[in-house]
Amino acid sequence: MSRFNIEACLSPALFQYAETGDVIAVVIDTLRASSAICAAFDNGAKKLIPVAEIEEAREYKKNGYLVAAERDGYVLDFADFGNSPFNFTRERVENNTIVYSTTNGTRTIEMASKCHKVAIGSFLNLSALAEWILKQGKDVLLLCAGWKNRVNLEDSFYAGALAAKLLEYSEFETNCDSVKICLDLWNSGKDDPLEYIQKAAQRLRLGEKGLDDCIPYCHTPDSSKVVPLYQDGALYNDIPDKS
Amino acid sequence: MSRFNIEACLSPALFQYAETGDVIAVVIDTLRASSAICAAFDNGAKKLIPVAEIEEAREYKKNGYLVAAERDGYVLDFADFGNSPFNFTRERVENNTIVYSTTNGTRTIEMASKCHKVAIGSFLNLSALAEWILKQGKDVLLLCAGWKNRVNLEDSFYAGALAAKLLEYSEFETNCDSVKICLDLWNSGKDDPLEYIQKAAQRLRLGEKGLDDCIPYCHTPDSSKVVPLYQDGALYNDIPDKS
Repeated sequence: MSRFNIEACLSPALFQYAETGDVIAVVIDTLRASSAICAAFDNGAKKLIPVAEIEEAREYKKNGYLVAAERDGYVLDFADFGNSPFNFTRERVENNTIVYSTTNGTRTIEMASKCHKVAIGSFLNLSALAEWILKQGKDVLLLCAGWKNRVNLEDSFYAGALAAKLLEYSEFETNCDSVKICLDLWNSGKDDPLEYIQKAAQRLRLGEKGLDDCIPYCHTPDSSKVVPLYQDGALYNDIPDKS
Repeated sequence: MSRFNIEACLSPALFQYAETGDVIAVVIDTLRASSAICAAFDNGAKKLIPVAEIEEAREYKKNGYLVAAERDGYVLDFADFGNSPFNFTRERVENNTIVYSTTNGTRTIEMASKCHKVAIGSFLNLSALAEWILKQGKDVLLLCAGWKNRVNLEDSFYAGALAAKLLEYSEFETNCDSVKICLDLWNSGKDDPLEYIQKAAQRLRLGEKGLDDCIPYCHTPDSSKVVPLYQDGALYNDIPDKS
């Protein structure tokens, strides 16, 4: 049996050296964009528009969109709320389109859009995503958003969790050292993910701004069945297959 | 006490995002360039000239230099011998200048030369290098040569070994997620480094060409006291301090 390969990029700056094209890309930005996106769809959001630039978010706001936007931990004055997954409550997002401003996440999603399909991965949808990937019958690229093009711990750790889940299926294998690195991280921390992630620089950054209350939530596996997919500039929970 | 920070780049493609400048860069290409360079100085080589391009190596040969050069595991017709550390015997290298052709290693060394000092790290000189770094009193950048700009397991694993050694000194600390990743790899494999490295893609690549006989040697810690340093296009075991 020919098996599907799993590859990982630990930073978006490494995407250009990966096997792209006819692969399923999974964009990983667990603290907090991927988790917030899953939370939004879990609470019935219709569509999410990720944007990298503040000015773009401001334009959307002028045009009547609901906008989640922060910089350095502060909700921008024109925005409706900030980037924490806790802000995406059912009351706010159900049947709505939301503009979500995230620099690392948006750039990584746009980069990945040259792949066959782009899905969003978080602990919240870990198993649902793995089952969806299995059905696609393609090689997989785990694309970590990182932090300003640097490798971060939390995304690499999650890439290990997802790779371990996929490797439970006999359909998958890996020849990629980056995946093997992520698997070792996952094996080091899987018994207590929240304790493991304490040492991540992003936890400290969020903590300094009092924004770390969502970290346990962002590391709760399988609370959601959504599989956010990116197409033509926006994220949907369910989109027709690309032809 | 103000402490010195340890940072890591898991691929040369990430160097541009690291804190460079007034830091000590350690170039890591354990299979096989860093190990061969240490072996050469251990056997009395006077000077090593790393070159990236075959044509450059050929020019040196025409000018009478001793040249080590391989491509895809085959010794190039004009070269004196190949890239294995076992080729750098005392009979061949003592008091000689050797040209060493290595694509990943040379490019990484040249990139690092914008840092304060550039040293070569391998398991062979692990403790000697750590002691030398301590004396420099600077922040440290662990720069993995990787493979064609991709992250590889063996260099990241070694970066973890060196970071662990440095962190035994109270003078060092790290705020870098990449270092924390490398430390987890080292902790996963330190009880049996040779067994750990079995899964590395480079081991398979070397094995297919019968070039994996040097892997145990390349993972023998502290067999050497050399600290190869790069200055003005060449490597030396001992060079005067830069002013």
